[in-house]
Amino acid sequence: MSVTAAKGFRAAGVTAGLKASGTPDLALVVNDGPQHTAAAVFTSNRVVGAPVMWSRQAVKDGVARAVVLNSGAANVCTGPGGFQDSHATAEKVAEVLGIGAIDVLVASTGLIGVRLAAEKLLAGIPVAADELDPGDAGGLAAATAIMTTDSVPKTAVRTIETPSGTVTVGGMAKGAGMLAPALATMLCVITTDAAVDAATADAALRSATRTTFDRVDSDGCMSTSDTVVLMASGASGAGVGADELTAAVTAVCADLARQLVADAEGSSHDIAITVTHATTEEAGLAVARAVSRSNLVKAAIFGNDPNWGRILSQVGTVPEDVAPFDPLELDVSVNGVMVCKAGGAHESPDKVDLAASRDVAITIDLHAGDAEITLWTNDLTHAYVHENSAYSS
Amino acid sequence: MSVTAAKGFRAAGVTAGLKASGTPDLALVVNDGPQHTAAAVFTSNRVVGAPVMWSRQAVKDGVARAVVLNSGAANVCTGPGGFQDSHATAEKVAEVLGIGAIDVLVASTGLIGVRLAAEKLLAGIPVAADELDPGDAGGLAAATAIMTTDSVPKTAVRTIETPSGTVTVGGMAKGAGMLAPALATMLCVITTDAAVDAATADAALRSATRTTFDRVDSDGCMSTSDTVVLMASGASGAGVGADELTAAVTAVCADLARQLVADAEGSSHDIAITVTHATTEEAGLAVARAVSRSNLVKAAIFGNDPNWGRILSQVGTVPEDVAPFDPLELDVSVNGVMVCKAGGAHESPDKVDLAASRDVAITIDLHAGDAEITLWTNDLTHAYVHENSAYSS
Repeated sequence: MSVTAAKGFRAAGVTAGLKASGTPDLALVVNDGPQHTAAAVFTSNRVVGAPVMWSRQAVKDGVARAVVLNSGAANVCTGPGGFQDSHATAEKVAEVLGIGAIDVLVASTGLIGVRLAAEKLLAGIPVAADELDPGDAGGLAAATAIMTTDSVPKTAVRTIETPSGTVTVGGMAKGAGMLAPALATMLCVITTDAAVDAATADAALRSATRTTFDRVDSDGCMSTSDTVVLMASGASGAGVGADELTAAVTAVCADLARQLVADAEGSSHDIAITVTHATTEEAGLAVARAVSRSNLVKAAIFGNDPNWGRILSQVGTVPEDVAPFDPLELDVSVNGVMVCKAGGAHESPDKVDLAASRDVAITIDLHAGDAEITLWTNDLTHAYVHENSAYSS
Repeated sequence: MSVTAAKGFRAAGVTAGLKASGTPDLALVVNDGPQHTAAAVFTSNRVVGAPVMWSRQAVKDGVARAVVLNSGAANVCTGPGGFQDSHATAEKVAEVLGIGAIDVLVASTGLIGVRLAAEKLLAGIPVAADELDPGDAGGLAAATAIMTTDSVPKTAVRTIETPSGTVTVGGMAKGAGMLAPALATMLCVITTDAAVDAATADAALRSATRTTFDRVDSDGCMSTSDTVVLMASGASGAGVGADELTAAVTAVCADLARQLVADAEGSSHDIAITVTHATTEEAGLAVARAVSRSNLVKAAIFGNDPNWGRILSQVGTVPEDVAPFDPLELDVSVNGVMVCKAGGAHESPDKVDLAASRDVAITIDLHAGDAEITLWTNDLTHAYVHENSAYSS
């Protein structure tokens, strides 16, 4: 399972002491090859953490031999000293593994604006290296060590059958708050034992994140640290086509993204907003995004109220040049009940039972074209307010 | 006070029975002239209520003799029948007052998607007409009748001294939720006894709303019913310059906008987000708007936590072509304490006491230009979630 499901990888998760809670906070994932192909996608935020600055450069050559990840501090807005901390982290991993620092990616998650306890982090790296394990235990330990407010570790695996044998794609992710566009706020490592070149890996990863993590908008807040890494070892001895790889990586990302939504801070509902008959995918996404950002819609769902008026009023905020549609033709269904037809009341909202399940399906039919997209979000609850007003204290 | 402070106006507020609570829900404001100049600004939402559709047409000639407003139902997404209800409302007011229906503006507020009880509304109009009062009591009754979740009526008055005598500008507003850009979700009527033409009135109103109501973004949710009406009677016998009128109308709007923020549903803090040294007003507004939309920032303020990391991470979501700035030069002050300087930690957040007052001042210095703007928002609280998950039930 997780990042050790694919051949050629070892992983570990240990307690370096960065978290006050004393739970595991340092993960290491190593690609033993024979290939060391790597690709990565990062947050589009202009304010980024030192680890993102480092890793953006380090992955440019399409090669990485290890990823080191820590929870307990995001190392964002920490100035030149913070960048030195990320650099020193990569150097330490390189020294312990006998590789080059430029082949080590770094990712951090936690509070913004505080320097991390670099001495503890550096001291933890040899400990993690000693525990590197190619089995399930290693993968699970790594997935556990990157958790912040996550309640469970998130892992996923898919396989591809090829003429040369089975190829495996596995992954782990963390993220329970600050889940927004252009990557849900998260760290994610995906590994595969397929033999692929860097360009293919990069294209597969970008395609996969665009339709999975980029379509999770839990609370509208884009993080400064989002990092998704794909590493390929070639250890299966089997090559795969670009389409096959993309499909498998997409499936792993979709699985992990769905787990992020299910574990979002303080949420009581997972909401799938599907926009049908949009002129383009982008138009549909703009409409879904607008609805997913409405605190009034989200609070109504928390109250088990299929309030289509609030949905329509959000749909109406999308400019016409972004998403053409006629407001008088809009249909809205909630859990399959068409509560709004042609911009007006239709079936009774009383027919919708939102209390029965965590899952809510909102479908908005624009009657404008042939494109369809789904975006995931969560409801707005008392628990969300509580967790996020008390988080840093 | 309120809409009857200026000469030439009468107002009333009565209970037509639209609200289950039995509180006043029907307001009437009449301009007795001698002039009947009018201007209006409406929501930019593409999904609009029938009253907005009616009033947009009715005000086009720059003339209005009355405004009829109801709470208890927004008459939005109610189809052709809903439009007929608004039309019939204007016709009834016209009949009772002996004027033309095209000179009657209509505004409604309340739940979306339900037909209003038109018979009750029409029956209430003669009652309201009988109670029309040019004194303070009439203005206050009207301001009270348009309240929904507002806890207090909102009114404001300013005067202009001219060589020909005193000119008065007064107004009333309602709005406690769905307060967002392109007009806080609200109904507002402003009256003046200045002698002005329609073009001057229109320019003054658009300028005033752009820098006041448009800079209230309480919960990011744009309404379908926002309406701000300005009526001028000329009853003072005094003309005013365009600049003087604009300044007075802006002052009344600013006063009312500030009252909306102070009474926002479930809020515990009023947050003034000031962006300084932006390249343009638009750039500064985009940055302030992004910060005002962050549930993480808003929940932190509720928790009395001056969490500048969350502020910076929102600032970083604004694209570079919209607001040029260097992320490593950003300063953030909360209540005058510079907690972030040059993109990193500076003074201790412990120096900021957010519990002491409802007012919070966040200042973000972009170090990029000479423009400065202030946007108002509120915090995200348990009470907001409660009110908005229970509103329609």
